[in-house]
Amino acid sequence: MTPLAQALLNPRRIALIGASADDQRLTARPQRYLRRHGFAGELFPVNPRAAEVLGERAFGSLVDIPGEIDFAYILLGTDNVEAQVAACAARKIPVACVLADGFAEAGPEGAALQARILAAAQGSGMRLLGPNSMGIVNLNARTALTTNAALEAENLPAGRVALVSQSGSMMGALLSRGAARGLGFSHLIGTGNEADLTAGEIASLLLEDADVDVVALFLEAIRAPAQLAAAAAKARSLRKPIVALKLGRSPFGAELATSHTGALAGSDAAADAFFRAHGILRVSMMESLLELPLLVAGRSPPARAHRAVGVMTTTGGGGALAVDALGVLGIEARKPDAAAAGRLEAAKLNAHGRLLDMTLAGTRPDRIMAGLDALRAAEDTDLVLAVVGSSAQFRPKDAVGGIIEGAKLAGKPVATFLAPQAEASLRLLAEAGIAAFRTADTAADSIAAYCAWRAPRETADIAAPTIALPARPDEADARGVFAALGLDSPFAVMQDTPPGDMRYPVALKILSPDLAHKTEVGGVALNIADAAALREAAAAMRARVAAAAPQAKLTGMLVQPMAKGLAEAILGFRRDPEVGPVVLLGAGGVLSELHRDIALRMAPVDLETAREMIAEVRALKPLSGWRNLPLGDLEALARAVVAASRLAGVAQVAEAEINPLIVGRPGEGVTVADAWVVLR
Amino acid sequence: MTPLAQALLNPRRIALIGASADDQRLTARPQRYLRRHGFAGELFPVNPRAAEVLGERAFGSLVDIPGEIDFAYILLGTDNVEAQVAACAARKIPVACVLADGFAEAGPEGAALQARILAAAQGSGMRLLGPNSMGIVNLNARTALTTNAALEAENLPAGRVALVSQSGSMMGALLSRGAARGLGFSHLIGTGNEADLTAGEIASLLLEDADVDVVALFLEAIRAPAQLAAAAAKARSLRKPIVALKLGRSPFGAELATSHTGALAGSDAAADAFFRAHGILRVSMMESLLELPLLVAGRSPPARAHRAVGVMTTTGGGGALAVDALGVLGIEARKPDAAAAGRLEAAKLNAHGRLLDMTLAGTRPDRIMAGLDALRAAEDTDLVLAVVGSSAQFRPKDAVGGIIEGAKLAGKPVATFLAPQAEASLRLLAEAGIAAFRTADTAADSIAAYCAWRAPRETADIAAPTIALPARPDEADARGVFAALGLDSPFAVMQDTPPGDMRYPVALKILSPDLAHKTEVGGVALNIADAAALREAAAAMRARVAAAAPQAKLTGMLVQPMAKGLAEAILGFRRDPEVGPVVLLGAGGVLSELHRDIALRMAPVDLETAREMIAEVRALKPLSGWRNLPLGDLEALARAVVAASRLAGVAQVAEAEINPLIVGRPGEGVTVADAWVVLR
Repeated sequence: MTPLAQALLNPRRIALIGASADDQRLTARPQRYLRRHGFAGELFPVNPRAAEVLGERAFGSLVDIPGEIDFAYILLGTDNVEAQVAACAARKIPVACVLADGFAEAGPEGAALQARILAAAQGSGMRLLGPNSMGIVNLNARTALTTNAALEAENLPAGRVALVSQSGSMMGALLSRGAARGLGFSHLIGTGNEADLTAGEIASLLLEDADVDVVALFLEAIRAPAQLAAAAAKARSLRKPIVALKLGRSPFGAELATSHTGALAGSDAAADAFFRAHGILRVSMMESLLELPLLVAGRSPPARAHRAVGVMTTTGGGGALAVDALGVLGIEARKPDAAAAGRLEAAKLNAHGRLLDMTLAGTRPDRIMAGLDALRAAEDTDLVLAVVGSSAQFRPKDAVGGIIEGAKLAGKPVATFLAPQAEASLRLLAEAGIAAFRTADTAADSIAAYCAWRAPRETADIAAPTIALPARPDEADARGVFAALGLDSPFAVMQDTPPGDMRYPVALKILSPDLAHKTEVGGVALNIADAAALREAAAAMRARVAAAAPQAKLTGMLVQPMAKGLAEAILGFRRDPEVGPVVLLGAGGVLSELHRDIALRMAPVDLETAREMIAEVRALKPLSGWRNLPLGDLEALARAVVAASRLAGVAQVAEAEINPLIVGRPGEGVTVADAWVVLR
Repeated sequence: MTPLAQALLNPRRIALIGASADDQRLTARPQRYLRRHGFAGELFPVNPRAAEVLGERAFGSLVDIPGEIDFAYILLGTDNVEAQVAACAARKIPVACVLADGFAEAGPEGAALQARILAAAQGSGMRLLGPNSMGIVNLNARTALTTNAALEAENLPAGRVALVSQSGSMMGALLSRGAARGLGFSHLIGTGNEADLTAGEIASLLLEDADVDVVALFLEAIRAPAQLAAAAAKARSLRKPIVALKLGRSPFGAELATSHTGALAGSDAAADAFFRAHGILRVSMMESLLELPLLVAGRSPPARAHRAVGVMTTTGGGGALAVDALGVLGIEARKPDAAAAGRLEAAKLNAHGRLLDMTLAGTRPDRIMAGLDALRAAEDTDLVLAVVGSSAQFRPKDAVGGIIEGAKLAGKPVATFLAPQAEASLRLLAEAGIAAFRTADTAADSIAAYCAWRAPRETADIAAPTIALPARPDEADARGVFAALGLDSPFAVMQDTPPGDMRYPVALKILSPDLAHKTEVGGVALNIADAAALREAAAAMRARVAAAAPQAKLTGMLVQPMAKGLAEAILGFRRDPEVGPVVLLGAGGVLSELHRDIALRMAPVDLETAREMIAEVRALKPLSGWRNLPLGDLEALARAVVAASRLAGVAQVAEAEINPLIVGRPGEGVTVADAWVVLR
């Protein structure tokens, strides 16, 4: 364990700055909770107005405390934080945690204050947790160093899942939900505003802890994507998966999450792409953060996912509910294949269609085990879901005993959904480490995340070319950038004289960094038949544009062959403020925007990912032969996506787009019809 | 109470045919449960092998029972059901219920058996519940006439929500879930296969019960839409809403639900349209069936919905989770309007943006009440959601007391979402009749259903004209049908001589009931300039088609002016096998199908509904002036939708479609470019 991990996750000498002597106060909680839950280390309440706090010796100030301090929790109000951070830094305390809010999330003044306390900490090598942090809990070490009221509970089980939460209140909510069903955590860490220590860096520390199998994240924003990516890489190598719930699936939620934490908002599609790219399982429902860790603990992503599960049930209605909820998320409850059907027959069990209904076979552990064993043998499913009916409530051992025994054998994961209220069964399953979903929808949420879980693909690190660009690039510059990355379409820049070799008819467009909308100033002419007509069109265009936009600086005119194709696409690149460079592909035209029909990935991508993206865009489906429509050159389109994604390595480019990119028939390639680039 | 309601919902003299003397057997359960839960009426176990069953006198056969019998529960296996139904019918028992499965859901033989027992019952005026029914529970009358294991529970609270479930096991699951949080039901009725008594008819009976405020339905299929529609009408007039969860949101779920119950599958969009048309609130999550009834009890649909809610919270993360889940379903957490802001200011509360965060104000009942009162005063929201954090777990009275008091005042509904595990708060809220959601997603599911809840619009009953149609109508016949309903586009039928008055250029199409694909046989010619060319084209077409399809009967040729417009739509009519006539509108072209971009309603519709449908089709948005694109004649399109929807009254038509329907600019109307109709 690194010194930071030791001080942050398992502090033994703790200063509580501003600890209240009134045990009803919020600021008395850390001391109360630490003692209540059996903390065996040393506590140093700092309170200038009391010699004793809750029966322990208090100190007038930080300097009075003898010896080393591992962790200081600053419980004072916003106004007093800066001085105390400085005092902690002066004492070279490894970690200080700030409870107060009123920092970056509260506006410019708060942001400036946050910057100052960060600078003070960094000046002495001290690490900062928060501000706006509810502290840390280490249940194995009985360290309840938090103000979170959930620690009022008498008995809190320890588990092997570590929770890192930007929201302090969700720490408590998840702790209480887990405890109610017999599931504990190893740690709960509230990261708040993440001025310094981020969820990603803390996740890395937790992954190295022998008591941790899975890290669960509750995120309002992704603050340091590189640190989270590093944690994800460590997670893969240690086979300790990371499961994340990130707010911002809806625009209202995104707005709120960022106003709440003072972070910049990225797009939700970009966050999705980030999690996918790094093999982090993303869920959207709170209880998935409790259950999915059990499903993935000790596992690597499935080599090939089928987006299909086997479903066994002792309740027809409950089984149907689960099948339906899974189906809504695109996961198929699949009929047993030959391998499964063979075992079912041997066990004298009958599967009708998509559901192995065990109602008639009786809820006997040996029968359930046989059914489970058969369904797990299927070669075309990712996991098995066992739905349990009323027996879970009144005969828990019969109901879940067979599942627990069956799940012990090697093989694909087993999840359960209990239709009735069934505490005893939930506890038995928790003890056995088996995910037990309380609702069909949460089961579907987690199972869909499992089916989407992939090992990240290593993208060959092709160095991007160095490209010289003017401060305000025009379309020719944009085309030049794409060409340098491998996506080249014929064009020429002319002043008055038509270019020598050009396939006619051509289109002619004015070039100017000042004119975003060329058509409106008469700056576009199409279908020009030959060189003579081109010369004439160019002269007329110069005159038109000069009249319409006399101030615009004209850098020349762009000539390109008229392109015909089967379909139009939009190919874009941008740097998401949260997660960084992304590439996006959509179909062209007005309707694509209305249908929000795009595929988005972290950039750069390889060819295989580009092909995946093409398959995701519904409006491009006709190009793959749907309904016998003519095929498009999708391989050329995939190469174009790869080329555009390499903009990630061209540091000066902020955003770029080709719209439309014209897709021809197989062998005809793709043609850049229009392009722009914006520098950072 | 009608005699049927009395016998079905509150039987006092009950025969248990096949009651087991072994109290471990399933067939012993009804007697055990009835006695355990305090049934005070008379029981008549029928068992030819025992003089006494579980301490009560048994009868060798039904005929031995003295006096009237209200309800007979046939607990015997499938093979013995027919004889016992006949015996019950012979005794003129008002209601017989069949537990066994193996009927319509099990294939043709089972369906035939089901038809026979139905005929036997109907012959004597006896009503049948099931087969495949878990019986009935009336908790006010302590009548636990069921085999459902959930009745093993010792204490079951009675409530004011009646549950009707096609799935017996979901009856038990919901009963146990409700009991765990202090919510009871008035009745639970398992309808199974619904050979005779359907969920709709039973809902009507329950609505008339003074102990019932809301009817909740768990449906795998809609069996008798007219009966359910009648129940919905009664629900409106009595202000006792109906809440329904229907399976089949996904194709896999639909397949399963119907295979499970032996019903015909309709489309889920049609089911949605049915519920909407009749003012039934549809939910998709199990726990919504418990909570949404509390939210709507005693209420009528909002006169005008805002699809927006006010959100108050004592947990930032929990509040954000709720806002996000609502946003995903299109419901906005709205910033307080002037009315709400004024009250907040008066109460010295600050709302930041979309969330009234009460964390700083403190979880004091008077503050919570003030916040709630302010948010309820907003004029642009449908309800208020109060999200409660850790205080719900440890200080339940402080946490929810203010909500309970505040919700008592008249005004818009109040719902709660409790982030932590918080049994005591759940019970307090249950006692006060306030919906308390355990997850943000269930809250969103129910709130979205509430925001979509509308009073049905009365559609003026315009008698459809009588239309004479040949057995195999061709395109001219189809156009004639639409014209008779008020959607007329110029066309003529010719043999060899061009029609006298026709606006050229025209299109020419072969007419034949035998040719579904005209283009493939050379049966379409476009852009014909004048009468001479038309004569020529017609002769050539006849020759081409005769050569390509010598067997096809040719009824003539159809001539229509070439139509230009801004956009193409698909306008369709069909009879859904579950819910009946529906009209559907989509944008034209291949992509609309890929995007599943359609609006669907029960037919007929009025103009206002047609306008709603147009607004729902994303690809038609450009026609309403989006991005300054040219406007389309949407009023003409709305009239066309109304006309097509009137096919509901043309009994002989099974299905019809106009594809494409060309939409012109305002004043230009719409033009039928192609049409077909299929008779029943």
